[in-house]
This record gives sequence, C-alpha cells and structure tokens, in this order.
Amino acid sequence: MAQEEVQNEGAKKVAAVTFTAVKPQLTVEAPKAVDAVQFYKSAFGAVEVGRTLHPKRKADQELPHILSAQLELAGSTILVSDIAENYAPVKAEGTGCVLCLETEDVEAAIAMAVNAGGVAEGEITEGDGACCGGRVGKVKDPYGYVWLICSPAKKCADVDA
Amino acid sequence: MAQEEVQNEGAKKVAAVTFTAVKPQLTVEAPKAVDAVQFYKSAFGAVEVGRTLHPKRKADQELPHILSAQLELAGSTILVSDIAENYAPVKAEGTGCVLCLETEDVEAAIAMAVNAGGVAEGEITEGDGACCGGRVGKVKDPYGYVWLICSPAKKCADVDA
Repeated sequence: MAQEEVQNEGAKKVAAVTFTAVKPQLTVEAPKAVDAVQFYKSAFGAVEVGRTLHPKRKADQELPHILSAQLELAGSTILVSDIAENYAPVKAEGTGCVLCLETEDVEAAIAMAVNAGGVAEGEITEGDGACCGGRVGKVKDPYGYVWLICSPAKKCADVDA
Repeated sequence: MAQEEVQNEGAKKVAAVTFTAVKPQLTVEAPKAVDAVQFYKSAFGAVEVGRTLHPKRKADQELPHILSAQLELAGSTILVSDIAENYAPVKAEGTGCVLCLETEDVEAAIAMAVNAGGVAEGEITEGDGACCGGRVGKVKDPYGYVWLICSPAKKCADVDA
C-alpha cells in the first residue's frame, strides 16, 4: 500500500490489480431501502453492520435516503441503496444490481477492464460514493453489467438497530 | 448435517437457517457466457474453477450452453450462465443478476423468506440447477430481486483452460 516513487508507465496494460472484495449492491427506489434492509434481515438473517445516509438531503424531506447500508450475509457483504430520480450515484439501466469491486488501485483496475473490452463511464468520484466513501469509478461490461471499482470502504457509521 | 429423527414442527417460522455463501449469478444471452467468462478473466483477473454445461443440449447446436461457470474473484464466487429463450433455469425479469444463497436447509430458508414477505416462485428442483447441481428454490423479494436458495454446490467439472 506504500506509494513508491517509481512510476510504472506500463501499468495501464499490465497492472496486476488485486481486488479485496466483491459486494453486490441492490438498488431500490427511494425511500424503500430502509424497508429492504429490514426484509433482508428477516428473510435471510442478514446483519446490518453500517449505514451511510445522503449527506446533502434536505431537512424537509421525510426520510433520509440511504446511500449505502452494509449487510453481512453468509460471509459476504451486500449493499442496499436508495436510488432517487434526481440523485442516482449509480444508475444501473435496466438492472438494479451492481457489483462493487474493491481495490487499492482504482485507476489500474479501470484501465485493465477497459483494455479487456469494458467501457468506463463518467469520472472517478471521491467522497460520498455509494460504497461508503472512498474513490469510485464505473465500468460497464460488454454484457450490460455495471461494476463499481472502489477503493476499500472506510469505517461507516455504526447502526443502532 | 446429520438428519435427526426429531421433527421440528415450528421450523417453518422460527428456523435458524444458516447460509454458507452468497454468489451473484450473472446471466447473459446464450451463447455469450463463454465470452463473458473470458472477459471477467481479462478484466478482473477472475479464475474459473468449474463449469457445468447443459446436459440436454442437442448435438447439432453449435456451442454448448454454459449452465453455470464458477469464477473466483476477490474471495467470492461469481456465477456466469447462458440464458436461452427456450431454456431458462432462471428468468430474472428485468434484471440479469440473481443472487444464489447456499444453505443445507432449502425448505426452511424459503419458508423464512416467504414469512418475511418474499414470494416463492415455482417448485424446488433437483439436478441440473444453475448453481451446479443440488436442490434449488426461487424467491422473489418485494424489491424485484430474485434469490436462488440452493443446497451447497457439488464438485463441478474441472476446467482445462
């Protein structure tokens, strides 16, 4: 993880990217994520380990939109996110399921995926990403699936419930 | 895993179901799964650890449909499956991503999900399921996502490539 001074100019094509986690993100129409989280707890025994709310949500809105709730289920992490019409960090176009791939090297991972035939969409964003902060880029694969290439999740707000 | 003689009549509602794995299954239009597997290898460094072909596929068809290719990626398993118009073990209706949940107790898991508000679809099937054999049931959750409740995957055919 230490930053080396040596720049690897060939990194874009030959990078040996290491991924640390795959997290399916299930997007639901806002503000249903809160109900969806409850359902996955009841239905599958999922355990909510963190929740990130929309930081810019207006006070006069009834419910805080869930940017990302992190659920542990069978040794994996599932993310549940509200998708609002006017604010969609992830617009999945026809499929609400997005796969988050965590890696320390977001740029190299995107370059590798694009080199293989994926299409990078948008810029790499920092901050209030759907994957609990960090840097997030997006790649659409040739089969229509959207992959979020994310730096590892930061510690999220603990959940009381 | 030992079968006990005692029957737990309340199991359908209070079963403490244990899930052993969550595996996102990406379905692609047949026969593109073979290409998709190659893409995920190149793009993300996924490693194919098993592949199950359609056992009833006719000889005069050009390519064997992939019922399920198992890819290891970042410590998780991703399944890639061909979906044909006339043979779709999983029809995901609007989203090609299905989540496979493995458990030893398929019935209890389905009962628990239905009790929480999910809708069981079809019967539990045995054999050439999309999750590499075993018993498979299907539950649609209130948010439109399809979950396959599967008994743990059997050993699949090894992959040469």
